[in-house]
Amino acid sequence: MAAAKTSFSSHGFRGATIRAIAADAGVDPALVMHYFGTKADLYAAAIELPISPSMVESLLLAGPRMEIGERLARLFFSVWEQPAAREPFVAMLRGAVSGHDIATSAFADFITSALMETMAAHLEVPTAQVQAGVANMVGVALMRYVVGIEPIASADTEELIAMLAPRIQSYLVP
Amino acid sequence: MAAAKTSFSSHGFRGATIRAIAADAGVDPALVMHYFGTKADLYAAAIELPISPSMVESLLLAGPRMEIGERLARLFFSVWEQPAAREPFVAMLRGAVSGHDIATSAFADFITSALMETMAAHLEVPTAQVQAGVANMVGVALMRYVVGIEPIASADTEELIAMLAPRIQSYLVP
Repeated sequence: MAAAKTSFSSHGFRGATIRAIAADAGVDPALVMHYFGTKADLYAAAIELPISPSMVESLLLAGPRMEIGERLARLFFSVWEQPAAREPFVAMLRGAVSGHDIATSAFADFITSALMETMAAHLEVPTAQVQAGVANMVGVALMRYVVGIEPIASADTEELIAMLAPRIQSYLVP
Repeated sequence: MAAAKTSFSSHGFRGATIRAIAADAGVDPALVMHYFGTKADLYAAAIELPISPSMVESLLLAGPRMEIGERLARLFFSVWEQPAAREPFVAMLRGAVSGHDIATSAFADFITSALMETMAAHLEVPTAQVQAGVANMVGVALMRYVVGIEPIASADTEELIAMLAPRIQSYLVP
């Protein structure tokens, strides 16, 4: 884990490799993959994200495609509704907005390559379209949890999910 | 203008009044309104926003209701595509994300009461739904202009407008 943290902070998400991290730790790459899964999952563990990319991917792609918008919105709010779970995301938003640094661009690369590109490929839509859908939830999170703009800050979660789900759906499965 | 800046920074957007600002400046409230329009327009001028609420409102409500999503998306990108014009918005995002202060909550109040509540009332939809639509554009702006996540950061503006317009439309005119 220490080797992973060092490697991601010096080389970013795309630049780091499981091979190099394993070499730094003096272990076999297969052992790293056995304990941590993919590079994306290892990164998520290193920055203490409360969910792993594999979890997100299997949750999203498991059920019916017609309900993917609702599943994504529900997953999103289930994380953001817990103060401890949303903390790393708020920290990343802060880092992102306050200026570019290696941690921010590593996180952006991770989100893009581990989540958005994978979803776009599965769903056969342009990556920018997946990003626009995710942007809708990120914008709501910013208003609701970070700035605290009313009435969206006090709205019922189910009401928000009902509102967002069909729009997310239309981005992901047009 | 000096009296307005002082008043908005001590009392926030909702707390400040044109009457008190005029009194501080030693002029008649009618004179303030003659030069600056509404309280919202005066606030926009005080924080040097590149657009005024009256401009936004008339632009949005002038054309056909079926194209309001496209008009809003087009107006949004016309501001954000100009580095000088987006600067106050980026500064506000920074302030909002880095912690609550009076400037941030004044801005949040202003956006809510001057823009979103007005639009919601005109369109007869819940304010939270207008906010969710605006959140979609804010999220895209965050990814595109602030974090620089690809491919949305390099996408063509017309392509983004075409993607966002129908979703914004479905929030505003369901």
